[in-house]
Amino acid sequence: MESLLEKIDSPDDLKRLPEKELPRLCEELRDKIIDECAEHPGHFGAALGVVELTVALHYVFDTPRDNLVWDVGHQAYAHKILTGRRDAFHTNRQYKGISGFPRRDESEYDSFGTGHSSTSISAALGMAVAAKMNNENERLSVAVIGDGAMTGGLAFEGLNNAGINNANLLVILNDNNMAIDPNVGGMNEYLLDIATSRTYNKIKEDVWHLLGKVNKISPGARAFIQKIDNSVKSLVMKQGNLFEALGLRYFGPVDGHDVNHLVKVLRDLKAIKGPKLLHCLTVKGRGFKQAEIDQTAWHAPGKFNKDTGEIITTPRSNTPPRYQDVFGHTLLDLARANPRIVGITPAMPTGCSMNIMMREMPDRCFDVGIAEQHAVTFSAGLAASGYIPFCNIYSSFMQRAYDQVIHDVALQRLQVVFCLDRGGLTGADGATHHGVFDLAYLRNVPNMTVAAPLDESELQNMMYTAQLPGKGPFSIRYPRGNGTTAKWKTPFAELEVGKGRLLVEGEGIAVLSIGTIGNEAMKALKECPPGSVALYDARFLKPLDEELLHDIFRHFRVVVTVEEGTIIGGLGSAVAEFAVDHGYTARVVRLGIPDRFVEHGTRSQLLHECGLDAESIYHRLRDL
Amino acid sequence: MESLLEKIDSPDDLKRLPEKELPRLCEELRDKIIDECAEHPGHFGAALGVVELTVALHYVFDTPRDNLVWDVGHQAYAHKILTGRRDAFHTNRQYKGISGFPRRDESEYDSFGTGHSSTSISAALGMAVAAKMNNENERLSVAVIGDGAMTGGLAFEGLNNAGINNANLLVILNDNNMAIDPNVGGMNEYLLDIATSRTYNKIKEDVWHLLGKVNKISPGARAFIQKIDNSVKSLVMKQGNLFEALGLRYFGPVDGHDVNHLVKVLRDLKAIKGPKLLHCLTVKGRGFKQAEIDQTAWHAPGKFNKDTGEIITTPRSNTPPRYQDVFGHTLLDLARANPRIVGITPAMPTGCSMNIMMREMPDRCFDVGIAEQHAVTFSAGLAASGYIPFCNIYSSFMQRAYDQVIHDVALQRLQVVFCLDRGGLTGADGATHHGVFDLAYLRNVPNMTVAAPLDESELQNMMYTAQLPGKGPFSIRYPRGNGTTAKWKTPFAELEVGKGRLLVEGEGIAVLSIGTIGNEAMKALKECPPGSVALYDARFLKPLDEELLHDIFRHFRVVVTVEEGTIIGGLGSAVAEFAVDHGYTARVVRLGIPDRFVEHGTRSQLLHECGLDAESIYHRLRDL
Repeated sequence: MESLLEKIDSPDDLKRLPEKELPRLCEELRDKIIDECAEHPGHFGAALGVVELTVALHYVFDTPRDNLVWDVGHQAYAHKILTGRRDAFHTNRQYKGISGFPRRDESEYDSFGTGHSSTSISAALGMAVAAKMNNENERLSVAVIGDGAMTGGLAFEGLNNAGINNANLLVILNDNNMAIDPNVGGMNEYLLDIATSRTYNKIKEDVWHLLGKVNKISPGARAFIQKIDNSVKSLVMKQGNLFEALGLRYFGPVDGHDVNHLVKVLRDLKAIKGPKLLHCLTVKGRGFKQAEIDQTAWHAPGKFNKDTGEIITTPRSNTPPRYQDVFGHTLLDLARANPRIVGITPAMPTGCSMNIMMREMPDRCFDVGIAEQHAVTFSAGLAASGYIPFCNIYSSFMQRAYDQVIHDVALQRLQVVFCLDRGGLTGADGATHHGVFDLAYLRNVPNMTVAAPLDESELQNMMYTAQLPGKGPFSIRYPRGNGTTAKWKTPFAELEVGKGRLLVEGEGIAVLSIGTIGNEAMKALKECPPGSVALYDARFLKPLDEELLHDIFRHFRVVVTVEEGTIIGGLGSAVAEFAVDHGYTARVVRLGIPDRFVEHGTRSQLLHECGLDAESIYHRLRDL
Repeated sequence: MESLLEKIDSPDDLKRLPEKELPRLCEELRDKIIDECAEHPGHFGAALGVVELTVALHYVFDTPRDNLVWDVGHQAYAHKILTGRRDAFHTNRQYKGISGFPRRDESEYDSFGTGHSSTSISAALGMAVAAKMNNENERLSVAVIGDGAMTGGLAFEGLNNAGINNANLLVILNDNNMAIDPNVGGMNEYLLDIATSRTYNKIKEDVWHLLGKVNKISPGARAFIQKIDNSVKSLVMKQGNLFEALGLRYFGPVDGHDVNHLVKVLRDLKAIKGPKLLHCLTVKGRGFKQAEIDQTAWHAPGKFNKDTGEIITTPRSNTPPRYQDVFGHTLLDLARANPRIVGITPAMPTGCSMNIMMREMPDRCFDVGIAEQHAVTFSAGLAASGYIPFCNIYSSFMQRAYDQVIHDVALQRLQVVFCLDRGGLTGADGATHHGVFDLAYLRNVPNMTVAAPLDESELQNMMYTAQLPGKGPFSIRYPRGNGTTAKWKTPFAELEVGKGRLLVEGEGIAVLSIGTIGNEAMKALKECPPGSVALYDARFLKPLDEELLHDIFRHFRVVVTVEEGTIIGGLGSAVAEFAVDHGYTARVVRLGIPDRFVEHGTRSQLLHECGLDAESIYHRLRDL
């Protein structure tokens, strides 16, 4: 049979298909996504879950004039394929290829760039209000948001405002009962309740039970009771609906995999102006059996065999562990010894490996859903009651809890240990996911200890140190990916806070690095003449090891700082401040991530681009 | 009559009072607050609104063992007076006096420090979960949160998690229908609906209407129908309740000014474990007529005559305007000329003077409620549709929207103009409200222009410049309080982005300042020998005026930077980076706010403490 997909270069082509062909197109799209993702890893499960929805949206609405905002955006693969990027899709998430997320500069169909969660309602509302001010009354703005993203406070703020702005906004709640891990929270329970009509059925039962008692009354009264029953139903479904309470008209739930029904529903919704929400039930990984069964593993499975459904893993023996697993195992070990330790994660138990502790101590771990602000303030509340929370948040997501870190933790000197996973360049997810700013934005927070380990052993010792009595707010950042030592477990040793260490002796040039990027510096040093360059591991960005810095500035003519973070405000800046404050005249060379957003690619491609791989560092050292 | 209040040094004393005396105690408390606030300005309206609630809480619950968290915290005056701070209360918000907000280091009754909005549910939930883990089954944690604070996303995140943690949490929703300005949003409409039984009454009417049609049926059926009616009522009130939907048991609404009834209700709630919410209706400013009538003006009225109810204002003629009014008037002028300009404020139309534009152009201004994250992403959505939003957020509250600034605005180079009011030391509100970090945390955001005006004229010109075509993300920060020039209105002039200017010529020492603190530097210079010190106004922290800096470093032996922001990461750091990057050896002296949280006091007291007033700067210059 001739391919439908091959003929679709834009939504205009899609609109020319007869409705009855849409299911076939969905199959082709699904196959395309499976084929591509098997070879070029991506966000597989979410992408498969919205195939029908994507087709229906572009079929019914007038994109790009109608704005379409994909929350988080990793589910926009079908959208990209249908909007002119079919043939480029094999470059998805690759260096210089198309982005794994919507990007305004990539396509006019990408109304709003996304990557972080829960932004879509606010952004689409902005567009809807703009259309209203322009008197573009037919123009619709659509936010497609998952139930996981709906737990983020920003989504609620958006809903709360959508209800009072009579703008032409459609929120599509893509309810698959999952974040990366199973979704949690009152909202999730509530959606389950609606989807399964739990409350309604209970009420209905009660009513029929009552009816049984009065079965001698007249048929007229019975009809009346039926009416009451209906009004109860409409009450549960409408008046009593959480979204209706906030001022949005609620529709659904509908089957998100019935493309023809979706087309019909969306056409109906076109006629209804004002803010409205369509509750759409979907299955993450739909159409690929293994992905439907183990949705967490297939969220972003890496390469896989599309025929057998096996995820292709590289053999693990003797390879160093992932930093996240070092975190996970160490946390469990520490928690076994210290009953005051608890674990908090905003929807990332698998992503940060807190699931290791969770399996053994489910009552001492808290997955709070996608809710970074709450994760931090909840941690502060636990710390105020004498617990020591290890609050693990990816570096770039911690930006969302900046105020809570300052206002709820640091100001009160509460002992919360922030573990910032995915610090530095994270790779294929690109600009929205790189953890570039944390060192800079945490350094200016009073009372905060800012640490970053060189390797696995230092990570575990930093975690051990952070939970010792009296340590106060403590942050530890480490990168995505694997460490450097297969046998990383060493006995815990306390690190002196604010003390760096000498790694390699040398004369003339001193390299001062922080974090795992020090390993690239180490490699660079091996290319230099022996003894020509010294290497120091700062360990702590704050407090700064002033004694060590005095020593360095007194003995070296050049000081090179190396950090996997923005060049503005981090280690290099701290050293520059120190140098000018004390009137040192040694030359300072600052290496870090340049002041621009870095795109996607492999970590090594990006490190090279930023001049932070061993080779680039070596060239800098040679030139000095 | 003998004073009851004078005998209460702690909640233990309160508990010894017979219940019938409680109304009298409330009157005394209210009088005390009125007396003190008339002389020592404070958050008056909110404090009066919770007098009865505060008495009832401490009367019924076992504080401080039961945790009491006051959201925002400016309503905690009665709480402070009842918990051992009655005699210290006249020092409220004064330098070295007690804080205007709860502080853990001030009293064991202050379970959690507050200041920013919407944190209480998360913090109290942390404490409740801690109590649960400790098997302290009777121990209760209470969050008292206003309906204004409830619009913040963090509050929703907290609610969403409270519903699934079966911990002993009581949320008291202090519903007065106000933030500082009238509260807005779907949630507010919903609360109004509950408070007035709007939906329930409508349903009830429908039912009775139906009943009329079947009035011939038997009394038994009629009783049955009554039952159905009750179940409808319970449905509207319970099953259909937004908070019940999220998993909290809902109680109320109750009259928050009937102290005896509140005592009874709170006692009942003691017996009910798990997460629950009590909806309490109060009146802001209760018991002081003028404050009840004009609640916005009396939120924090300053000094007033408690007998006449007149707010004491200093005569305004010929005094320079407040910066916020310069913002307000300029925004209106710009919006008149440029139809693409819109205004966005998170619940601060009066506080930031956007109400000036709002009065003339209500459709182009958006008060989104206490929702800083949404304010920014909503602005991004408007900008993506071609509008130029002026998004005004207090500096310290902008911390809450840091991720949105980076991810939704800067990354997409959208032209949103961030106006950061209350930049620098804000005075009596203290550590939570000082705008200390913005220069540092915005400087490391790529694509962002970071500007701060010296005076009113520069402020208006920066605002004019920011809305010119192609300017991209633009931030302007200015302080609380009055400017320097009574006749500040000048014709708009475009400023070259990234260019500073010379203010005072001189030799030897160059002072480079950013923002209005430059006026203190100017005063300091006047004490110095003429021509001995030059003064430059940087205007832009980013992009930095490198040409100017080269010029300065080539001609001066000492460069002094002055900024009203943290010494870590701001102008001083930028200059230090520049100096070391270019190998300049002139001495650099960095003046700024030290790396610790600064407490409350008058602005001049605090500037002096931080070494940033004219006198301190002069002393530094003299020593150089």
